[in-house]
Amino acid sequence: MVITSVNNSHIKDIYKLREKKYRDKNNLFLVETFHLVEEAIKSGCVKEIILSEGYDILYDGLKTYVSDMVMNKLSSTNSNPKVIAVCNKIKEDNNIGKRVIILDNIQDPGNLGSIIRSAVAFNIDTIVLSDDSVDLYNSKVIRASEGMLFNINIIRKNLVSFIKEIKNDYLVLGTDVNDGVNIKSIDNINKFAFVIGNEGNGISNSVKELCDKFIYLDINDRCESLNASVAASIIMYELNK
Amino acid sequence: MVITSVNNSHIKDIYKLREKKYRDKNNLFLVETFHLVEEAIKSGCVKEIILSEGYDILYDGLKTYVSDMVMNKLSSTNSNPKVIAVCNKIKEDNNIGKRVIILDNIQDPGNLGSIIRSAVAFNIDTIVLSDDSVDLYNSKVIRASEGMLFNINIIRKNLVSFIKEIKNDYLVLGTDVNDGVNIKSIDNINKFAFVIGNEGNGISNSVKELCDKFIYLDINDRCESLNASVAASIIMYELNK
Repeated sequence: MVITSVNNSHIKDIYKLREKKYRDKNNLFLVETFHLVEEAIKSGCVKEIILSEGYDILYDGLKTYVSDMVMNKLSSTNSNPKVIAVCNKIKEDNNIGKRVIILDNIQDPGNLGSIIRSAVAFNIDTIVLSDDSVDLYNSKVIRASEGMLFNINIIRKNLVSFIKEIKNDYLVLGTDVNDGVNIKSIDNINKFAFVIGNEGNGISNSVKELCDKFIYLDINDRCESLNASVAASIIMYELNK
Repeated sequence: MVITSVNNSHIKDIYKLREKKYRDKNNLFLVETFHLVEEAIKSGCVKEIILSEGYDILYDGLKTYVSDMVMNKLSSTNSNPKVIAVCNKIKEDNNIGKRVIILDNIQDPGNLGSIIRSAVAFNIDTIVLSDDSVDLYNSKVIRASEGMLFNINIIRKNLVSFIKEIKNDYLVLGTDVNDGVNIKSIDNINKFAFVIGNEGNGISNSVKELCDKFIYLDINDRCESLNASVAASIIMYELNK
């Protein structure tokens, strides 16, 4: 059976997951396009697959077929994705490993996605999101992450209490152009937690107070700052020793 | 006098500059918000400043005051920018310096803006855009560049003929994970031109054939690739010796 009506009650429930409040209420989120849905299937979080009529994907579970009109309604973009996965939110693991990045109020979904991608590339174990950061399950974050959110532990925490908990064990690094050391002078660190600040305002004061050391990237002074995901990625690249 | 009608013929002409074809026809483009307009004024390319009633900016030339409704109509975003500059397109300088990056069909305006920002930060002299790259004067490019497009030479060229012209004098670098050397093994290069490929497809074949050497960044193999502006920025960072 193919669902052809956008007023179908099941479709309406799925459509609501485009909004954060329904994602939070139901503990579910949506993933679009074959490439990303395949990553979701591999990670084991898929609850149901929605497919455009005539398409299929290797998945041993509930599949629902819909018309193109229904698919377009559910999609967050204008390009019919042919497949959407309804996924259970990914479990947070409190075993955070040795190499942690902390995102203090990152707001741009493209930046968060791109940082997740770089974190996997440069062997970070855990990403800690502040309560006020953009929603991990925002469709733009998932797209920009290229599905890498399924390949790394991501937890959401109150940063001040989280940092206080780990501070004895981890070197807490922040960025500060005026009062820091060049990242190139940093040796191999056994356990670190590196804080990336908000795009406009940097690291919040209450978090800054908890940092052990500040680092900076040497840039030409005609340029005030780098894009947040670029700066974070270069620092993760340098810390990957 | 304050222009309050969106049907005013001067306003209509300016509004058209939101589209590439009118920017190209008139050799003009728009810049929004105080921070970016100040960068434009410093660079000397401003032709006229449009201001919301009650606002002002240090500029010794034509100023036009408009109502909030007109400002909102002209703006590319939903947040009233209070100031818009009509600018003459920036002159291209064929004196390209020693440190060049070549963008082969970069399509995402955020990526182009972010690469421009990093290029200024890491002392690149010239950015060469392929004919098919996203328009430099797209409002999202300007915003993502944080105004850095005014601080670096950017030229638009047919890449194959451009590279053939400079090839004797510059080391032409491309990226290739399978057939390259680790960027960390690259020594100081006197004159280089580093090619960054399209987000999905990488470097085009005709350009790849003209590269002297391929480099790669060492990343965890759970991650297929980095965001294009992140990869480009890390390589510019490494080449900045």
